[in-house]
Amino acid sequence: MKKIITFSSIILSSIFYSQVQKVEPAFWWSGMKNPELQLLVYGKDINNLQPEFSNGIKIKEVKKVENPNYLFVTIDTNGIQPGKTKLNFKNGNKTVKTIDYEFKQRQQNSANRDSYTSSDVMYLVMPDRFANGNPKNDNTPDTAEKSDRTKTGGRHGGDIAGIVKNLDYLSELGVTTLWNTPLLEDNEPSFSYHGYAQSDYYKIDPRYGTNDDYKNLADELHKRKMKLVMDYVTNHWGSKSWIIQDLPAKDWIHYWEEGKNGFQRSNYRMTTQFDINAAKVDEAACMDGWFDTTMPDMNQGNPMIVNYMAQNAIWWIEYAGLDGLRVDTYSYNDKKGIAEWTKRITDEYPKFNIVGEVWMQDQAQMAYWQKDSKIAAIEGYNSHLPSVMDFTLFDAVGQAFKEEPGWDAGMQRVYGNFTNDFLYPDINNILVFAENHDTNRLNQTYPNVADYKLAMSLILTVRGIPQLYYGSEIGMAGDKGKGGDGEIRQDFPGGWAGDKNNAFTKSGRTASQSDYFDYTKKILNWRKGNEAIHYGKTLHYIPNNNVYVYFRYTDNKRVMVVINNNKETQNLDLKRFSEGLNNLTKGKDILSDKDFDLKTNLSVAGKSSLILELK
Amino acid sequence: MKKIITFSSIILSSIFYSQVQKVEPAFWWSGMKNPELQLLVYGKDINNLQPEFSNGIKIKEVKKVENPNYLFVTIDTNGIQPGKTKLNFKNGNKTVKTIDYEFKQRQQNSANRDSYTSSDVMYLVMPDRFANGNPKNDNTPDTAEKSDRTKTGGRHGGDIAGIVKNLDYLSELGVTTLWNTPLLEDNEPSFSYHGYAQSDYYKIDPRYGTNDDYKNLADELHKRKMKLVMDYVTNHWGSKSWIIQDLPAKDWIHYWEEGKNGFQRSNYRMTTQFDINAAKVDEAACMDGWFDTTMPDMNQGNPMIVNYMAQNAIWWIEYAGLDGLRVDTYSYNDKKGIAEWTKRITDEYPKFNIVGEVWMQDQAQMAYWQKDSKIAAIEGYNSHLPSVMDFTLFDAVGQAFKEEPGWDAGMQRVYGNFTNDFLYPDINNILVFAENHDTNRLNQTYPNVADYKLAMSLILTVRGIPQLYYGSEIGMAGDKGKGGDGEIRQDFPGGWAGDKNNAFTKSGRTASQSDYFDYTKKILNWRKGNEAIHYGKTLHYIPNNNVYVYFRYTDNKRVMVVINNNKETQNLDLKRFSEGLNNLTKGKDILSDKDFDLKTNLSVAGKSSLILELK
Repeated sequence: MKKIITFSSIILSSIFYSQVQKVEPAFWWSGMKNPELQLLVYGKDINNLQPEFSNGIKIKEVKKVENPNYLFVTIDTNGIQPGKTKLNFKNGNKTVKTIDYEFKQRQQNSANRDSYTSSDVMYLVMPDRFANGNPKNDNTPDTAEKSDRTKTGGRHGGDIAGIVKNLDYLSELGVTTLWNTPLLEDNEPSFSYHGYAQSDYYKIDPRYGTNDDYKNLADELHKRKMKLVMDYVTNHWGSKSWIIQDLPAKDWIHYWEEGKNGFQRSNYRMTTQFDINAAKVDEAACMDGWFDTTMPDMNQGNPMIVNYMAQNAIWWIEYAGLDGLRVDTYSYNDKKGIAEWTKRITDEYPKFNIVGEVWMQDQAQMAYWQKDSKIAAIEGYNSHLPSVMDFTLFDAVGQAFKEEPGWDAGMQRVYGNFTNDFLYPDINNILVFAENHDTNRLNQTYPNVADYKLAMSLILTVRGIPQLYYGSEIGMAGDKGKGGDGEIRQDFPGGWAGDKNNAFTKSGRTASQSDYFDYTKKILNWRKGNEAIHYGKTLHYIPNNNVYVYFRYTDNKRVMVVINNNKETQNLDLKRFSEGLNNLTKGKDILSDKDFDLKTNLSVAGKSSLILELK
Repeated sequence: MKKIITFSSIILSSIFYSQVQKVEPAFWWSGMKNPELQLLVYGKDINNLQPEFSNGIKIKEVKKVENPNYLFVTIDTNGIQPGKTKLNFKNGNKTVKTIDYEFKQRQQNSANRDSYTSSDVMYLVMPDRFANGNPKNDNTPDTAEKSDRTKTGGRHGGDIAGIVKNLDYLSELGVTTLWNTPLLEDNEPSFSYHGYAQSDYYKIDPRYGTNDDYKNLADELHKRKMKLVMDYVTNHWGSKSWIIQDLPAKDWIHYWEEGKNGFQRSNYRMTTQFDINAAKVDEAACMDGWFDTTMPDMNQGNPMIVNYMAQNAIWWIEYAGLDGLRVDTYSYNDKKGIAEWTKRITDEYPKFNIVGEVWMQDQAQMAYWQKDSKIAAIEGYNSHLPSVMDFTLFDAVGQAFKEEPGWDAGMQRVYGNFTNDFLYPDINNILVFAENHDTNRLNQTYPNVADYKLAMSLILTVRGIPQLYYGSEIGMAGDKGKGGDGEIRQDFPGGWAGDKNNAFTKSGRTASQSDYFDYTKKILNWRKGNEAIHYGKTLHYIPNNNVYVYFRYTDNKRVMVVINNNKETQNLDLKRFSEGLNNLTKGKDILSDKDFDLKTNLSVAGKSSLILELK
């Protein structure tokens, strides 16, 4: 008797309380290479419902999970024409819910879209700290943390409108690609401004704008022949994510200990990913541990999660017209899962570039993560990740310009980094940078503009895709060691109404800001048209007296870069560089526009660079 | 008329003054895998002579070079039976010189001889500084530098007899393989004691003994089940070498500039060997530059030199019954030439081990040089070198025990080294060491015996072939930074008649010397029989509180090593180590012979190690 009552009550609750609240993705496209699409359907106790498309679209599988509030509906989109349809949810014969579902027409050339390459220069923005274009969305009813510019870790009100408003500034500066830290909703009650604890993977944070605003940002960039890169987080979701709050199954996140839904911090020892001697418990503590308290670690060992995130990334690429991705904490993910995710995307978009954050101090270890790595192949692994970040170059740049030269110091440190280029399967597709949102500001490491210029002349002329960090081009500094993250993520002057200093405009910049800006702009705009810098080979010379000389060259073009990190003027006997000069005897320095005779000697002032177009 | 006179005088001088002074090698063996043998024939103006064997041995080629004092005679030894023959040199029909030539019978199993492996422990001796067994040969009429023990860079009189005399000491200590720095003649007028500027590749320096003495050393070692490793120098010869003094052709050594027979020091930038961006002039300056003023750089790009050195190495292997080689400055050689040389030897002796000195600070760069390296394969290179030296471990050991622990410091530095083991194609065949004849003494870096013990417990239990340096096992110290090489190459106490302290005998050792010796002896003798240490896998754990725990294991044996580099006693919760413990709950510490219960916790005293045989 008891059993029957229980059974009836389940039926009753199904009929009366079932309510489909969400279907993700909310729409899709016809003509995708991968015909399979798995819809996540969410609502209280909806897992007894039977989904059915009105126009006969074939449902391959309806999958239930532990949590009755979810259904996963796999459909075959092969042959589906663009258009709208109805998705009905039935309980027996009765349709209890009908959802409009659309398969959109893809943009022309969508699958074969171009992406960012070493012809580009990437500019990294933290949207909350760049410019407040729409003060009306600083606070919204549906987000927890309210705006407070007095807090270094608070929300300051920067938004998509602020970025769009200043795209002409970026265009003038000469960068060609925008990478912004995450814009998806992060509904943590504090420190939500960085956006790495995302609570809704299909929704732009309303304090930044709407999904349409994000699409508009891409359009406005494209109008200016610039590209948009999304910062994607696969490793962890935010604790306030609606899915985290009502997990489909226990194995969606790493609980650390079975049945113990608790926080366990990662040991951050990424070497366990490939260390043949590593203890399993250490490996798990790295990959399964949480990146931070508000960031439950996702289990990419579960193919449903990999699929959810792959579809989500593809959705944003199609929807907003993205030109590339940057993936956060790439090397903390489950190795197989993240490789599958990456392959899903690059299978769909063969030219699409994705750069992963693999923050390691060893080049073999970084090269491990790049697609088709011969080093990873030792272990039979292939990440399929097209691009990685050159963190060892970052380390070298952070020391080279302030230390005494030595066997491994000064410009030798920089030279040394490039001696291992052969380890990378695709050396041009590697992100080069002197700083980012997690490091000390370059202008803090080097308070002298002369050192900034040396570093920029290097970063913008070596192999790879240079990445700048917002504000450094006008001299912004910030000591992470002293003030924490807030210190390196200050507001761009001029981004807020009432800012006394507006560095976005020529007239608003101080003399010092102009010095930084004009130098950066000069190289960047010159770089745009230089194939030798974009994809030329490198020929470099062992530094003497802290002077680093290298050439970038193609069959058609040849550039000689001389970085004199010595305080004194240095006179170079050019005989040594004959292989690089290749019988050319004149060079125009693109910084000073002066011509140089390169027959015998070359004099370079202390702490200065020459970027010579040879002819 | 003038022409005729000149012509006659050449003929006359050929007839009356031609004199074959040397044939190298002086004898050979029948039944070698490679049937080709090239004899170097030397004598004033002998290159018009026609060589001919009395018993019909076929001469394939007679090759002249620039210098008329040389002939290179290539013969086919296929089918040659052991025995003596005559090598006649004819001028027209007239035999002007006859040389006795012998093809010896090879020792049984010579081609398939065993070599040193990770079951062995290598002991490095500088013969001039170890023991003076025969004071009569301290000075010889045919060698320039005379004995003078007051000079730190002079010859002190140590010799082969001194080593033989103390083999029982080494046997008791428990080392199984002897590597001595070069014993071939080095006839420099000063600093000849190190032997790296060799003047005769077929002759033991008479101040060390005779070729027979060297063979006897091998025999005496083999009697004690110990092995002999020769220190071979391919990169450079000594300036007093008779061949260097009368070069066969200009291209035998690197002159640096054509026609300019001068010294040019190497830039020592070995990264140019694989750097795809390197300038040719830098690459040449590394490989072709001289290692030092007395060491002309040999051109291994010349196949005749590679052949000369390959035959010479094989000659010593056959003659003395060598068990292995160590190759000096391996990564300074011409890449292709040295690979060919190495392959020649290992083709002849498939199990023969050769360890190369590749002194680099990057594991990918070191792994590059090991046979079948996947990293070198990126560039299509294969050195064929079976073994390399773990210089990054050496770096780590030199810092770990004296620094404060940190993200990359203390035991973490050591752990970090092993996380890259996957880069090496053969991780067991790698030489591990805490010091050698070119570095600071371990006991100088760590004046405290406790740290010596920590370092030894590590070096002698990790993967690879441990190498010790003479005298450290009785506490010898030496600060290279202060006193130069002499400081780290002091005489072993007891090696010279009249030495007050004789550390070769138990009764002669001070209490402190005994402390060092007994500890080392204990581990070494235990290590001899432990397959888990010889070739077991490694399982290691991220250090906590500066305590490093690892396991070495095979299917049959399992050893747990705990190195507590913390000054305080540490209590380990053993739950974390369950993978390593593999359900075993007891361990016997081979250092103290105490039994430990391993069910729950393990207490380890500050600055001490446990080496636990699990059961």
